[in-house]
Amino acid sequence: MQGKHYLMIPGPTSVPPPVMAARSMPVIGHRSEDFVKLYQRVEEKIKKVFQTQNDVFIFTNSGTGGLETAVANVLNPGDRVLSLIIGNFGERFANIAKAYGAVIDEVNFDWGKDVDLRLVEDKLNSGPGYKAVLVTQNETSTGVLNDIAGVGALIDGTDALLLVDGVSGVGGIEIKADEWKVDVLVTASQKAFMLPPGLAMVSVSNKTWGVIERNVSPRFYFSLPAARKSFANWNTAYTPNVSLFMGLDAALEMMLNEGLKNVYDRHLLLARATRAAVKAIGLSLLVEDHCASPTVTAVYAPEGVGADDLRKVLREEFGVTFAGGQGILKGKIFRIAHMGFADRMDIIIAVSALEMALARLGYPVELGVGLRAAQKIFLGEGEVA
Amino acid sequence: MQGKHYLMIPGPTSVPPPVMAARSMPVIGHRSEDFVKLYQRVEEKIKKVFQTQNDVFIFTNSGTGGLETAVANVLNPGDRVLSLIIGNFGERFANIAKAYGAVIDEVNFDWGKDVDLRLVEDKLNSGPGYKAVLVTQNETSTGVLNDIAGVGALIDGTDALLLVDGVSGVGGIEIKADEWKVDVLVTASQKAFMLPPGLAMVSVSNKTWGVIERNVSPRFYFSLPAARKSFANWNTAYTPNVSLFMGLDAALEMMLNEGLKNVYDRHLLLARATRAAVKAIGLSLLVEDHCASPTVTAVYAPEGVGADDLRKVLREEFGVTFAGGQGILKGKIFRIAHMGFADRMDIIIAVSALEMALARLGYPVELGVGLRAAQKIFLGEGEVA
Repeated sequence: MQGKHYLMIPGPTSVPPPVMAARSMPVIGHRSEDFVKLYQRVEEKIKKVFQTQNDVFIFTNSGTGGLETAVANVLNPGDRVLSLIIGNFGERFANIAKAYGAVIDEVNFDWGKDVDLRLVEDKLNSGPGYKAVLVTQNETSTGVLNDIAGVGALIDGTDALLLVDGVSGVGGIEIKADEWKVDVLVTASQKAFMLPPGLAMVSVSNKTWGVIERNVSPRFYFSLPAARKSFANWNTAYTPNVSLFMGLDAALEMMLNEGLKNVYDRHLLLARATRAAVKAIGLSLLVEDHCASPTVTAVYAPEGVGADDLRKVLREEFGVTFAGGQGILKGKIFRIAHMGFADRMDIIIAVSALEMALARLGYPVELGVGLRAAQKIFLGEGEVA
Repeated sequence: MQGKHYLMIPGPTSVPPPVMAARSMPVIGHRSEDFVKLYQRVEEKIKKVFQTQNDVFIFTNSGTGGLETAVANVLNPGDRVLSLIIGNFGERFANIAKAYGAVIDEVNFDWGKDVDLRLVEDKLNSGPGYKAVLVTQNETSTGVLNDIAGVGALIDGTDALLLVDGVSGVGGIEIKADEWKVDVLVTASQKAFMLPPGLAMVSVSNKTWGVIERNVSPRFYFSLPAARKSFANWNTAYTPNVSLFMGLDAALEMMLNEGLKNVYDRHLLLARATRAAVKAIGLSLLVEDHCASPTVTAVYAPEGVGADDLRKVLREEFGVTFAGGQGILKGKIFRIAHMGFADRMDIIIAVSALEMALARLGYPVELGVGLRAAQKIFLGEGEVA
């Protein structure tokens, strides 16, 4: 049926009606008093999500542009960088730094694992004196959550800057930018912030500003000094997507009305239910419990069922879109997002469709068994399916 | 979570995004060429849904106003009327006729049963020569579908007019206004037409126009002669809700794009799945299979669980709103609508929430058992749960 589609990919995520409505209000001028007030409202709220006293700059581009903003303002050619890579987006972050001529020391962890802090400590102790450490908070390609507090504690007291890709985490997973010593935190609109793609949010620590001022890398659109100069007058350096700003204002209002702790607990609950359901169905999870992402769950397709065949049946017959695997996991896993505007019934839909699609493909699934496991989690009866 | 609410009452029903978008377009003047074209488009499409060659008039009021339009233009004080009553809305239709001074011969069937055609035949043979017969296509209060073709066949060839309340049926359940000898068919926007409340649609047979012309009952807003006069110029007699007309245009487009047979089959499938799930859970249906409504299913609350307590848990804890019982069924049943913009995953949500709410209230439900029954229907595996 037209319009009955369930988008369950780890971004873009679905947009709630109040955010839709806010984005549908008349466009305002970006150099108007209305925009100044809008930016002030948004800034006050987004600092609560970032848990930071630093300024959060909002750029009109997607998350990758946000990561490039972090790199272009901090790294000069020849700078030594430690890249902690646990998946596709860790690789991308490193590739951006390479594009700016940085010399990358990559530490690759198996896809599906989180960063091993002992290895990071060793690298920091034995390394060349890194200008920056790049790490992903929540690796979208595998559904792994890294211990940013742990990485931050290791870097604290060194000269290195901690640049964190929080694109698929911030807003759905707690992050304490200041307490955890995050120097540049980057996130984007189309994930837990429940907006379409188009905005990146970037916080910058005082420690970072000293580095930025001496940076010689070419940048114009991504210039943090230009952003800061305009921000002093509650403005952006270049034309902002005013409609997305209005939507962000509404989305943040929803999140704060729900309560950030409730938002984070909801994501954890949905992840638990998804994992319990998948296990009850008899499928294997890519990621162990201790580092499982609250916003996206990666699942191995069972023996004899192609992950992408399964996704095709899910999409075409049941209207449900899961993400596929990336890189080395392509064709092997599928990923179920429970991110942003997602609640219990979305998991029920996902699991129900998964069971039916598996049945359709001849996999011997006991219909309802995953659903019951999810229902038990929602009823507070715990993980015993 | 704000915005995650599932409205599953038999009208108003939820509105699909394309219809929302159409209703959000700029308002047009109701005496403009744009409106003429809009009414022409809507009329061409709605006649396909009604399966009629007669004109379908569209009034800016809810369904009850549509029923009053039928009565006020047909019945004079003292006219003899046969009212076939199987529930709350059959009673309402009779009450409107009473308000216009008609003398009502009521035939009441038990709530939960359909009209017994043999009784209708007896009444027509022994009665006073009825001016009109009033009947409900789909009784919203009980979830019973009447055999309108059967009633029409009995009236065909008599002087009586067949006035049909199709408010919660038309658009979701096939009706053949001309072939089934329906003289006045009334429906409304907020049920299977996937719109908010505010429009009633009324078709009028040639046989009826002869009666309308001699009618002396007071009417102005509800005047069919006034409507017909304006309709000759593709207009309405009084100011129409132009935004809902735009929405109706979009909703009809969706329905015809899906294919009316597919729309009706979808409603039948959802009703079957709902009924199978309810039975698998161990609850009792109000209505037998042979006359079960494709658009709404009435279920007895189990022993020891109040229907309205159950509805409260469903609404407050799971965000799902079912309807309660009306009249003599108040507190005894709840009603699940699967009407209009509804598809398989809505049934999954309804059944999942029902199971969890029953568990919450201490009813010994085996979680997942109703879901499995619904899934089997959706997979084409039939009613054996």
